[in-house]
Amino acid sequence: MISRRGSLGVAAGALVLPAGRAAAQASALPSWREGPPRRAILDFVQATTTEGSGDFVPPAERVAVFDNDGTLWVEQPIYSQFLFVLGRVRELAPQHPDWTSREPFRSALAGDMATLAASGTRGFLELVTATHAGMTPEAFHRTVADWLATARHPRFSRPFTELAYQPMLELLSLLRAAGFKTWIVSGGGAEFIRVWSEPVYGIPREQVVGSTGKTEFRLGGDGTPMLLRLPEVDFIDDGPGKPVSIGKFIGRRPIAAFGNSDGDLQMLQYATAGLGRRLGMIIRHDDAEREYAYDRASRIGTLDKALDEAPRRGWSVVSMRAEWARIFPWSGG
Amino acid sequence: MISRRGSLGVAAGALVLPAGRAAAQASALPSWREGPPRRAILDFVQATTTEGSGDFVPPAERVAVFDNDGTLWVEQPIYSQFLFVLGRVRELAPQHPDWTSREPFRSALAGDMATLAASGTRGFLELVTATHAGMTPEAFHRTVADWLATARHPRFSRPFTELAYQPMLELLSLLRAAGFKTWIVSGGGAEFIRVWSEPVYGIPREQVVGSTGKTEFRLGGDGTPMLLRLPEVDFIDDGPGKPVSIGKFIGRRPIAAFGNSDGDLQMLQYATAGLGRRLGMIIRHDDAEREYAYDRASRIGTLDKALDEAPRRGWSVVSMRAEWARIFPWSGG
Repeated sequence: MISRRGSLGVAAGALVLPAGRAAAQASALPSWREGPPRRAILDFVQATTTEGSGDFVPPAERVAVFDNDGTLWVEQPIYSQFLFVLGRVRELAPQHPDWTSREPFRSALAGDMATLAASGTRGFLELVTATHAGMTPEAFHRTVADWLATARHPRFSRPFTELAYQPMLELLSLLRAAGFKTWIVSGGGAEFIRVWSEPVYGIPREQVVGSTGKTEFRLGGDGTPMLLRLPEVDFIDDGPGKPVSIGKFIGRRPIAAFGNSDGDLQMLQYATAGLGRRLGMIIRHDDAEREYAYDRASRIGTLDKALDEAPRRGWSVVSMRAEWARIFPWSGG
Repeated sequence: MISRRGSLGVAAGALVLPAGRAAAQASALPSWREGPPRRAILDFVQATTTEGSGDFVPPAERVAVFDNDGTLWVEQPIYSQFLFVLGRVRELAPQHPDWTSREPFRSALAGDMATLAASGTRGFLELVTATHAGMTPEAFHRTVADWLATARHPRFSRPFTELAYQPMLELLSLLRAAGFKTWIVSGGGAEFIRVWSEPVYGIPREQVVGSTGKTEFRLGGDGTPMLLRLPEVDFIDDGPGKPVSIGKFIGRRPIAAFGNSDGDLQMLQYATAGLGRRLGMIIRHDDAEREYAYDRASRIGTLDKALDEAPRRGWSVVSMRAEWARIFPWSGG
């Protein structure tokens, strides 16, 4: 449902005098430095939520979509879901003696990342299906929650749920206060993200769109109805798959999109090409000191075409180094 | 987002004295006659939303799923989407001269329902893909809206959007006021329903799950990004497909489910088998005078297994004739 908070927020905003609005804007997004991206966000929100403005957008159409890895939280040195998968392979290995001699399991168990990387997407999906399937969604959620409780990021030595970017958390809150619905549209597994999206981002699990495995409805041995996760890929939510899944799950074209790689290119194109005011934004990782600097090409994805298209399509490019006064909720300003 | 209204509603409810609560319950669901189904609904809502109750359910988990055709609106003498498809075949026929001699188009154009019915699901899907594909979702939405503006139900001579059941509209409102999220999970086309679900039911389009066709992301001739509907079935959201799509779109097990046919059997099983308080309800069409009486078997679906399972699973069976004081918003009480 469209939250009444949104409408009330807009109505209240309309009563604020220009000076009050300016003061509110000055205190918004405290972890964003004054600069073109912060200005673009605030202008966009004001234009789309001010009744009478030529750019006004009704609350039901205020849809903002966010990539997850590298856009909302850290994706280096490797996707957290990949580390989760490796941990699960180790946990399950005693039940699969053949894994010690069978690729890609052998490499995963030996920590031989070079051979594992050489097995490519196919190898990774084999690990995913072997560790994510054969159980109910509820049981899978528990394996994710258990892993999150103990796993630590190799560089920051923090739980992964503490590695969301503070400026993006502020942006999510700002948009929701302005009546937007915020959605995750990720190449990662939807069920992996759904476990922690609400506590970390304030995004309920039904607003998480991502890659999916097939499931099947079954009556268990005692007649208990359940879903069972199958070892088959259902949908890879990446690249041109992102606008397709947006159409299927959200059913309308977003008016704002945030990404950080070429996997987000088509989502950015789709969201920003509609009529009326739009906001497209690319997070650029150029801060080796506070996070990572990997820019156009890295082991886990490229930002190349999207960066080239940004000026022509009017997308803001956010230099983490220049624009973000603070990176994490717990790190200094 | 979980609406704050829900939490506030609960908090306010907790302050009401027993007498006030009784008065509120007496005025709730005015089109439902006093009887076991109405009582079952009110007891369920009170138990799941009263903090401190052993059956209390946090707002995020208050998910209720509804079949559409025959549960929320009239499905006789035939699904409205079927009539929409026939209308589109007639409109598009001049561009397809071969249709006058090619099945199932010939029968559709000639109004030869017997031959058309004999072509079965396969024939119907051929008509659907020919009339629903080759355009953007936005263009498809316009064809649905145009049809709804002029089409009339053959018996009631009313627009189809006026044929929602008043008792179910009251139920949807009651649940939402109690902090529930209401979802449609239909065998019908998701994009067909999304055009009118918000104005008719108060259900936003992202809470409509249904059968889908494939779509593709494209850059148009002028480089404009768009989705294009393809003439291929993506997913048939019926029977065991309903719990599967609930897992995919909602990501959690509902605690209440409403249906009217065996196509809803697995959804009812899934929703009512979880731990804690649950509500399963079957709408039984037994009122030929005010609506239709078709009960266990009709041309458009059966209610057989689900009716047999109802007592064992604790589902309420709602006789429209006995339980509903009023059928439509415009009809007398």
